[in-house]
Amino acid sequence: MKKIKIGFQGEKGAYSELAAKRFFSSRNIELIPYKTFADVFHAIAKKKVEAGVVPVENTLNGGIREVFNLLDEQSVFVIGEIKLRISHMLLGIRGAKLSGIRKVYSHPQALLQCRKFIRSAKLVQAEYYDTAGAAKFVASQSDPSIAAIAGQSAAEDYGLAVLKKNIESDGKNFTRFLVISRESVISGDADKSTVVFSLRNQPGALQRVLSVFAIRDIDLLSIDSIPIIGKPWEYKFFVDFRGNIFQEPQAKTIEHLRELCPHVKVVGSYKEGRTAF
Amino acid sequence: MKKIKIGFQGEKGAYSELAAKRFFSSRNIELIPYKTFADVFHAIAKKKVEAGVVPVENTLNGGIREVFNLLDEQSVFVIGEIKLRISHMLLGIRGAKLSGIRKVYSHPQALLQCRKFIRSAKLVQAEYYDTAGAAKFVASQSDPSIAAIAGQSAAEDYGLAVLKKNIESDGKNFTRFLVISRESVISGDADKSTVVFSLRNQPGALQRVLSVFAIRDIDLLSIDSIPIIGKPWEYKFFVDFRGNIFQEPQAKTIEHLRELCPHVKVVGSYKEGRTAF
Repeated sequence: MKKIKIGFQGEKGAYSELAAKRFFSSRNIELIPYKTFADVFHAIAKKKVEAGVVPVENTLNGGIREVFNLLDEQSVFVIGEIKLRISHMLLGIRGAKLSGIRKVYSHPQALLQCRKFIRSAKLVQAEYYDTAGAAKFVASQSDPSIAAIAGQSAAEDYGLAVLKKNIESDGKNFTRFLVISRESVISGDADKSTVVFSLRNQPGALQRVLSVFAIRDIDLLSIDSIPIIGKPWEYKFFVDFRGNIFQEPQAKTIEHLRELCPHVKVVGSYKEGRTAF
Repeated sequence: MKKIKIGFQGEKGAYSELAAKRFFSSRNIELIPYKTFADVFHAIAKKKVEAGVVPVENTLNGGIREVFNLLDEQSVFVIGEIKLRISHMLLGIRGAKLSGIRKVYSHPQALLQCRKFIRSAKLVQAEYYDTAGAAKFVASQSDPSIAAIAGQSAAEDYGLAVLKKNIESDGKNFTRFLVISRESVISGDADKSTVVFSLRNQPGALQRVLSVFAIRDIDLLSIDSIPIIGKPWEYKFFVDFRGNIFQEPQAKTIEHLRELCPHVKVVGSYKEGRTAF
């Protein structure tokens, strides 16, 4: 049976890879790592992979603007969602001891999420472009005074020892991932949709547009404003709402948005993600 | 005459210092640098300074979540606003030449804003906690192969040569700064207000709250959702709106918000900022 190719950003062992494994669980997939988010989107556009899995929001750090911009600008659609509990671990080479660690490598976001631990252990921190990449680097050195902050699968992939578990400052650390594809596939159980729009430069424009949802009793789940590059103090808005765009009120809402907004893109209708561990 | 003490984040020569100088222009001020945003807020709370100037939004990178959180959590109020055109320069020691530069130091945001230039000049980039701090570091080394990305005032403060001007990828690069103080001072010409609120966990809660502005024809200027730490997938919303809270419809709106929301803080009413260069 042919494997379905799925792209993700980061090295083997990254949280995105784990999210992809959990989302596609029993299906026969091949996971392809890419260096940047843009690379994942381009791989989809160029048909090098069938789909991609990208993080869009973390409960401690908020939305990831680069991914929002790519969702708007690139010809891809959201076809699914999954939430992952992020549990950071301090990883060292075999034989390293927690008390001997002096320097820690990880992605800036992960370092930020573990700042209380890093401060109390008095570690020097060094930024790395990716958590799993940091684990790979530590594994390549035979230095018992350095460690990486990454997840369980990075420990396994690179044969590192877990020196300490759950070192994040706040235990309620989740990341929401979107599954993206070249074609907009809407399954029958899709209960959540995402649309991005820009506003006319008029007083009351935002209220007018939000009323388009309100008059149809469509529940807004979230709203994110993203600066439009090259137009200072103008924004595009990403709105998540209940329902799928094959339902009549939702379809009418989109029509109505197109009437009011200079730019509208339906990013996708999909089943709201469950939380995986 | 006694000088008014104003706190800002960064080293002498930082963009925040320039914003403070432009905002207080002719007044007799003393500018006090602090290492972090939290330090500036604490200095205000402890009466070490009269006021502070902090960036809240950049037109390329969006809102600064750490500042939003501090505005909500700390006992400070916004009393003014100023927008600054950010023009990045490549700075080296006297005698350094553009063609000889190999490595560039700056704040991650500034590196991001100059990524096209850095890529085309094939420079190695190194992150520094502050643009002016990077300039200070370069000035302290006698190495003509390293440079900093910072502003004009950093060049002057540290005696560096301007190797290239306007190296930002997008010329329309502005940062919005807020002037914050221990007490909520509302001047007669205040035409803009900021409020932060959280929502009850109910379908339609966001629409219901936004209707509180709509029914009074109060223009929403922006809306930012910030994750609530410890409550995954719940947000607090920062809303900028037209008018000041001494006006009746605005005062009634705030009363109405307190009825609907578990948490409401009026962050301030102030005069909308002009753009300085």
